[in-house]
Amino acid sequence: MAPPYHIDDWKSAAAAKRASLQASIPKSHLLPQQLAELAANSVLLPDDPSVLSCGILTPLDLEITSHEDAAILLAAIASGKYTSVQVVEAFCKRASIAQQCTGCLTEILYDSASKRARELDEQLRIEGKTVGLLHGLPVSLKDCYDVEGVCTSSGLVSWLPNQAAKTCSVGRGIIAAGGILYVKTTCSQGMLMVETINNIFGTTANPYNLQLSVGGSSGGEAGLIAAKGSILGSGTDGGGSLRFPAAFCGLWALKPSKGRIPATGVSGVRSGSESVNSALGPMAKPVSGLELWLSAQLLAEPWNYDMSCNPMPWRTVEAERPKKKLVFGLILDDGVVRPTPPVTRALQIVTDAIQKRGHTVITIPQETIFSFHRPSMACTMLSNVQDGGRAIMKHISASGEPVVPRTATGSAASALTTQELFDNHLLRSSLAGKYEAIWQEFGMDAILAPAVAHPAPPHGKYISNSYATIYNMLDYVTGSIPVTAVHPTLDVASQEWYDSKPYDRIEQERFPYDLGDAEMKELYTSPDVFKDSPVGIQVVCRRLREEKCIGILKEIEFLLSEK
Amino acid sequence: MAPPYHIDDWKSAAAAKRASLQASIPKSHLLPQQLAELAANSVLLPDDPSVLSCGILTPLDLEITSHEDAAILLAAIASGKYTSVQVVEAFCKRASIAQQCTGCLTEILYDSASKRARELDEQLRIEGKTVGLLHGLPVSLKDCYDVEGVCTSSGLVSWLPNQAAKTCSVGRGIIAAGGILYVKTTCSQGMLMVETINNIFGTTANPYNLQLSVGGSSGGEAGLIAAKGSILGSGTDGGGSLRFPAAFCGLWALKPSKGRIPATGVSGVRSGSESVNSALGPMAKPVSGLELWLSAQLLAEPWNYDMSCNPMPWRTVEAERPKKKLVFGLILDDGVVRPTPPVTRALQIVTDAIQKRGHTVITIPQETIFSFHRPSMACTMLSNVQDGGRAIMKHISASGEPVVPRTATGSAASALTTQELFDNHLLRSSLAGKYEAIWQEFGMDAILAPAVAHPAPPHGKYISNSYATIYNMLDYVTGSIPVTAVHPTLDVASQEWYDSKPYDRIEQERFPYDLGDAEMKELYTSPDVFKDSPVGIQVVCRRLREEKCIGILKEIEFLLSEK
Repeated sequence: MAPPYHIDDWKSAAAAKRASLQASIPKSHLLPQQLAELAANSVLLPDDPSVLSCGILTPLDLEITSHEDAAILLAAIASGKYTSVQVVEAFCKRASIAQQCTGCLTEILYDSASKRARELDEQLRIEGKTVGLLHGLPVSLKDCYDVEGVCTSSGLVSWLPNQAAKTCSVGRGIIAAGGILYVKTTCSQGMLMVETINNIFGTTANPYNLQLSVGGSSGGEAGLIAAKGSILGSGTDGGGSLRFPAAFCGLWALKPSKGRIPATGVSGVRSGSESVNSALGPMAKPVSGLELWLSAQLLAEPWNYDMSCNPMPWRTVEAERPKKKLVFGLILDDGVVRPTPPVTRALQIVTDAIQKRGHTVITIPQETIFSFHRPSMACTMLSNVQDGGRAIMKHISASGEPVVPRTATGSAASALTTQELFDNHLLRSSLAGKYEAIWQEFGMDAILAPAVAHPAPPHGKYISNSYATIYNMLDYVTGSIPVTAVHPTLDVASQEWYDSKPYDRIEQERFPYDLGDAEMKELYTSPDVFKDSPVGIQVVCRRLREEKCIGILKEIEFLLSEK
Repeated sequence: MAPPYHIDDWKSAAAAKRASLQASIPKSHLLPQQLAELAANSVLLPDDPSVLSCGILTPLDLEITSHEDAAILLAAIASGKYTSVQVVEAFCKRASIAQQCTGCLTEILYDSASKRARELDEQLRIEGKTVGLLHGLPVSLKDCYDVEGVCTSSGLVSWLPNQAAKTCSVGRGIIAAGGILYVKTTCSQGMLMVETINNIFGTTANPYNLQLSVGGSSGGEAGLIAAKGSILGSGTDGGGSLRFPAAFCGLWALKPSKGRIPATGVSGVRSGSESVNSALGPMAKPVSGLELWLSAQLLAEPWNYDMSCNPMPWRTVEAERPKKKLVFGLILDDGVVRPTPPVTRALQIVTDAIQKRGHTVITIPQETIFSFHRPSMACTMLSNVQDGGRAIMKHISASGEPVVPRTATGSAASALTTQELFDNHLLRSSLAGKYEAIWQEFGMDAILAPAVAHPAPPHGKYISNSYATIYNMLDYVTGSIPVTAVHPTLDVASQEWYDSKPYDRIEQERFPYDLGDAEMKELYTSPDVFKDSPVGIQVVCRRLREEKCIGILKEIEFLLSEK
């Protein structure tokens, strides 16, 4: 039987799930009562000194989890400096802490993870070599990634009885490379919002400022990594779901094109619409983690067991830092929502660093961008809700849970007829052809653009996913770049910014979930609203150029570190 | 302005096009009056001794066009044995003859072809090296391939004023490799029938027996190659459109997966439905031609100028004859239409040759095949006409031309609602998942199956495309294998064959264009009905395994030649 399951009392079902999750945290990982109360009131940061010194974490745990680079940790395991058991133990503890402070977990698999770590340690000891690229490393998964015998709920109460029969292809790839599955993490209700709020696990908080959104729908992953509870995470992105969390949590991420990463066993509500290009991808602190995740996946040759995946081996050489000078296009404003000052500043920081190195940055003319991005945004808005909410509402109604505000379910008003749907496909093809011509015209290697117009907003207050979703429509590869953090004085908006005429809202009736430029100005009253939020941007490459994008991310990482 | 164009009098417009095509045949290529009259009455085979000796073809023309292997001809051009001018001249003459006897051409580009041949000869003389893999070789194109300044009509009268502004990506690839565009060839009305009949150019005849169909929709290409008017052809396949012509004309062909070959500039009526996986591919006599075409395309790195195309370079090593023993699955009957005796015999010939070499052939259980192929056929029938004919009828109505009988336009009865369309997508995903499991279960490298249930039928009498279209639905790579010819005694059907209970028709109301198993028995009264028709089958590989498929075709070509 497949979900949805009928649930008589959604509140009890959700409460039972929360209780069983809480009960699965080992006693030794529980915060002492005083801290637990602060955590319950969402006022305890996971890296608060009181937490770090409360006795859960040993000096070795702190040392291990102080590493941000998975490659270094893997080398330490391979050389015997740390055992996998030690590494897994350390990340499990910090994941438990992150869960108590921010609510980012959905499933805890510590027992099987420890068992696997012992086996891998034993194997390394006996055979003297690692089993693969990820030997002994814990890797986290967004809830929608199926793990055999474990619940996949994807933010829906009616999915709580849904136990996966088989581990997803990505999970198999991680395991084959020696990686260890140890937690699954929160997402938005049905993965239909770029924040992380659902009726089972509540709202996942940003570990930089608990009052702010962690982004979504892959928000649990990003929050967990930002809280040092994971060093390598796995998300999905059908309209910004990797890029919002990466931007709001200060992470690097890669959104591949559809077909590059095996998608079988990653579960969400399927409407049968095939108009949206969703993709699976990694998040990590340094870029090295992204490459490890992708290359581990593709070295497993997943196309042999998952036909959703193109037989395109990982091309190591193309993922190296580029030796030649590059040409970047720059998008400052998409004509849908003006970026806020910290995002514009982040673009400038990256542009400066790139130009200083001798690369070229060409500002793509505003009229070109506006003439593509506004109709493209309208086109994707229609695509995203074209089934009129029929599929998702069946899965929400089955439990009687309410719709989380701003969840992009679609509605009767958003349903397209077949003719409208086909016309929208034709529009998309035409826009894609025109966008393609820009690459030729400017001879670009990549495009720099905002990922989101704003930093992490207060919960439930995101404005629009216009900068992100267009690249799902075009199926381009995008890399997320963490750049800076909101600054109390540098990021005060000018009067000119406030006075500029707001851009018209797009498709407000059919897609009321996003807000617009006017609301952006209302929200951005001061940098203080976004206090301590990381600020990121994205770099965009053409379809199926995952290696090239990684190489460019490495270059930018290097240039930003040089400053 | 884009097609359709309003045409006041479709008959005059079509007649004018035929007249201008006829006028573009050089005088020296015209058959003498007596032969011309026979040709006009469709009773003159293009290789009739009277044609070969009528004075159009010189001994050198005959020698050049006696070559079936493009690789050998290319070597002869490169070594200076023949000039490109001589080769182009010879194929132009035979194309003109094929046109007069079978009606396979739509556009004649001899002048520009000769000019280009002279340039290439000159370049080879001066520089001492060829410009690319196809140096000096004429390559033919199905009409839907755009060539700058040339009409693309795709079998529609309302497209006659449509002059292409730009050469398609495949054409650019051919030119970049030194190939020469010299003719475009007939297809069915709007490319929506697996025979080649339209209101502009009439019915293209099979050069083996003019009373029989050449297959379609890429029928002009196949007929031209079979008549030695081309040595390398370019078609498309959205439901058997390469495989029907290849099977009926004794050719090898390759249908790639979507995304492998750049599709920009290949024009048909676009409804905006994206549910059908159409692909571009080559036809040739020996397999070497297919590899030349594909590798020439991909060496041009078309992904740099055409984003419809995956950045997947040609992998020469994988396209070699396999060194290890292979496992083939065998499909004898799909449960939609029983194959006729010559097709079953062709499967047996290939199976015997393969097994003799030590490869394994496993007959996939009939219940497995029936349980996948019948619902898959229903699924693709719905997909193929899901817009209810709105788009194509606009293009047919614009000229007032009638619908050619059995053209799969769709109708009000076939229009799907968005919900039905999405449900059909879900069914397709589910069937694809189950089909994928067969590959694992049997550990297969490839599948041998009929391409069509019957040999070339009398014009307008094809039965069903069930064996072909399922592999568009699944987006698998398929290779066409010419095996034998209809035999007057070996291919008499048994009484048991006639007495077997006919399979039920599928989706007859929504897709009345195909016929069924009962009609197959009625048509196959005797092998004489299909006299002299070639008989072919197909070999099926997984998605995007073009190189592997070429390697397997080479192996089968070798094994068949050994007998």
